[in-house]
Amino acid sequence: MSERIEIRRLPKRGQYDEATIHAILDAYYLAHVGFVVDGQPFVIPTLYGRKGGTLYLHGSAASRMMRHLETGVPACVTVTLVDGLVLARSAFHHSMNYRSVVAFGTARKIERDEAKNGALKIISDHLLAGRWDEVRPPAPLELKATTVLEFTIEEASAKVRTGPPGDDEEDYALPVWAGVLPVAMKAGEPVPDERLIPGTLLPEYLKNRD
Amino acid sequence: MSERIEIRRLPKRGQYDEATIHAILDAYYLAHVGFVVDGQPFVIPTLYGRKGGTLYLHGSAASRMMRHLETGVPACVTVTLVDGLVLARSAFHHSMNYRSVVAFGTARKIERDEAKNGALKIISDHLLAGRWDEVRPPAPLELKATTVLEFTIEEASAKVRTGPPGDDEEDYALPVWAGVLPVAMKAGEPVPDERLIPGTLLPEYLKNRD
Repeated sequence: MSERIEIRRLPKRGQYDEATIHAILDAYYLAHVGFVVDGQPFVIPTLYGRKGGTLYLHGSAASRMMRHLETGVPACVTVTLVDGLVLARSAFHHSMNYRSVVAFGTARKIERDEAKNGALKIISDHLLAGRWDEVRPPAPLELKATTVLEFTIEEASAKVRTGPPGDDEEDYALPVWAGVLPVAMKAGEPVPDERLIPGTLLPEYLKNRD
Repeated sequence: MSERIEIRRLPKRGQYDEATIHAILDAYYLAHVGFVVDGQPFVIPTLYGRKGGTLYLHGSAASRMMRHLETGVPACVTVTLVDGLVLARSAFHHSMNYRSVVAFGTARKIERDEAKNGALKIISDHLLAGRWDEVRPPAPLELKATTVLEFTIEEASAKVRTGPPGDDEEDYALPVWAGVLPVAMKAGEPVPDERLIPGTLLPEYLKNRD
């Protein structure tokens, strides 16, 4: 294990096995991507898809992030799911239940149209499985305006915290409410577009989503 | 406006006024912080608080992030709220409704205990206003083990997307469901700690939270 992925603080929360890392990456769709321009770090939110140890990212060919990442500079892709606020009896032991992955690697631009379409389908399926096959596929000019990157995970670590607060033994006597406030991303009722063709059915993949 | 905060892609989504930026920062509590170690970008999730144009961060004095940020290296703090998945009739026009802030600046370690406690209260109030005054305050050794940073926002930009998909005119004739799937972080039912003193009331700030 290299130093950059070693969980040094609270090492019991650190995990390095691929199954844990992939499960966290598959549980969400928003990543924060870090890259460096002239010594200045940038952190930009973006959607992603995953296949094996590769993450797929896309964006406008004009975007700063795409233009830098495609040159193969060192990058960091972080995905975080917040699961709960952990309320302890002491300020010090307050915490958060969460699952996060910090992945290091470099990106490569996908050049061929067929491969680009394949990667875009992976991103789309990651977000809403089934959607890609229903919509109008990218036209040649749209594909040209889109940069699609494959980010090979060179190494990654996961951090996971679950469960109740861990208070100091003497603090359990304090008459303070303690426990966990669970939080999660939840979907609301789908809002149909005003110009939807009357009678168009809501797709199954939008029903009863978390 | 400097180049690093200029929104070049879809500039109509870019906003630079302080009120918009602060409102987004106040609507969430998880930031992704970027910093560079030997050319390698790191992106680490962390809680934060805000007062004026300053963000407060805290962590173990042993954490890699704290030890690097406290040296005053260039940093980037990004906060993203996902508000909806935007489903267009074409793959190309799929999008996300979101609010994000990308803030650049440098951090400084807060040394004096009184100022550290004040900053920790700002972080705590940002997450759960009222909580700080109910819990056991940090003991001297706990405070010593905690690094508290003030991150002065030198410049920042916000990006906001709202509303329905924007399809190409000819695509409105396609019989594809289109619209927005709203998503948001939602709190569940608070889970009391097993060792809660019987009769301890649930605090008001935990009731009916989003």
